[in-house]
Amino acid sequence: MDKKRKQILRELEKKLNYRFRDIFLLETALTHSSYINENPQAGLSDNERMEFLGDAVLGAVISDLLLKKYANFSEGMLSKTRAAAVNEKPLAQLARKLDIGRILLLGHGEEISGGKTKDSLLANALEAVIAAIYLDSGYNRTKIILEKILDPLPEEDDITTQYLDCKTELQEFCQQRLKTIPVYSLTETSGPDHAKIFTVQLKIADIILETGSGRSKKEAEKQAAQKALEKLLAGQTQ
Amino acid sequence: MDKKRKQILRELEKKLNYRFRDIFLLETALTHSSYINENPQAGLSDNERMEFLGDAVLGAVISDLLLKKYANFSEGMLSKTRAAAVNEKPLAQLARKLDIGRILLLGHGEEISGGKTKDSLLANALEAVIAAIYLDSGYNRTKIILEKILDPLPEEDDITTQYLDCKTELQEFCQQRLKTIPVYSLTETSGPDHAKIFTVQLKIADIILETGSGRSKKEAEKQAAQKALEKLLAGQTQ
Repeated sequence: MDKKRKQILRELEKKLNYRFRDIFLLETALTHSSYINENPQAGLSDNERMEFLGDAVLGAVISDLLLKKYANFSEGMLSKTRAAAVNEKPLAQLARKLDIGRILLLGHGEEISGGKTKDSLLANALEAVIAAIYLDSGYNRTKIILEKILDPLPEEDDITTQYLDCKTELQEFCQQRLKTIPVYSLTETSGPDHAKIFTVQLKIADIILETGSGRSKKEAEKQAAQKALEKLLAGQTQ
Repeated sequence: MDKKRKQILRELEKKLNYRFRDIFLLETALTHSSYINENPQAGLSDNERMEFLGDAVLGAVISDLLLKKYANFSEGMLSKTRAAAVNEKPLAQLARKLDIGRILLLGHGEEISGGKTKDSLLANALEAVIAAIYLDSGYNRTKIILEKILDPLPEEDDITTQYLDCKTELQEFCQQRLKTIPVYSLTETSGPDHAKIFTVQLKIADIILETGSGRSKKEAEKQAAQKALEKLLAGQTQ
């Protein structure tokens, strides 16, 4: 690796606040397969195997953070929140913040077709960088770095509110198309105080359309609304 | 927790070769939601949130082990091997070896319908136990324990052979239905010596049907065969 390239990698290290023992791990993480295809003599490997590992390490770290932050979320809500957090879009955004596109090694064809700005390439490279840190220093260090560079997790209420949007959507649908409003009623609570499960029934025009359950009444209502919406919207397209 | 239950949990600890600082983490991991529904007064939580975390931690550990063991596997082969390793079946089998079914807390209805022997319940409980160790002692310790209790990973050649079955399947299909045999030819190799990519062409009755690529000629042929099989079998059902 020449001095100039090393300097470029050092800039990313500064942004990560992490100095690699083995800088070639970072170089591999930043090497797209298109570069290898065009430059077989360079003696590098592409980042695809690392991306495989980085994706899994990120999944574990995020799951840990979510579990601790959202004490009231059910497994279903946690899974949805995780899916949003490890989605290509936010990862590509973080890769841009770290200026990864600029230093990514791409084949010429990929480069002129805008590879350095593609969400998928950026997200994959970021996952590979996560694997590079993991392989260089282990899980705990990787977790500490991720906690610093990842966007702060939204507050529980904000997610619940956003998640509740389908209640509003269902309400509007019912008013406009069915000239009625959905009615929710709590039918059951179970579980101990710190882990109660609420079950609600959703009626539209006096017909029991769905039930929903969750760790709060709100969450249960939301689940019922979502299921009902899916049913009603599917009926529309038939 | 009464003394008898504690003793039962200690037996699992022995099998795991791990002593919990917080034994209630293990108890939660072994508590199915059906038990909570029937015993709200017990003051326990169910294991669903832990299962969410354990699944991700297991994914990271397995990915690490696979990456190190299978130096020649592409990302695609690694993903397939991981999917097989974290599948419900092998996890349930491991849960049985640890006798987790016997000590799982289930609701009465779930128990009489055979819950203690269901693959899904056993696999989920095992994932929750993995999370319990992670929460109690962190990732590194969890990884060490998993390396000891997981079945040894198959040899690279064995997986490749198994994976090559679709070459045999394609061959049989061609002989029986088309009265010909598939012919593979290497059309390209690229990449440096330690990370070569092979590309092969697959012809059936002199028609180029598919190409495949991979880290070895075998893998490339297999990919081409798989793609061709999918095409031919799809054609059959139309």
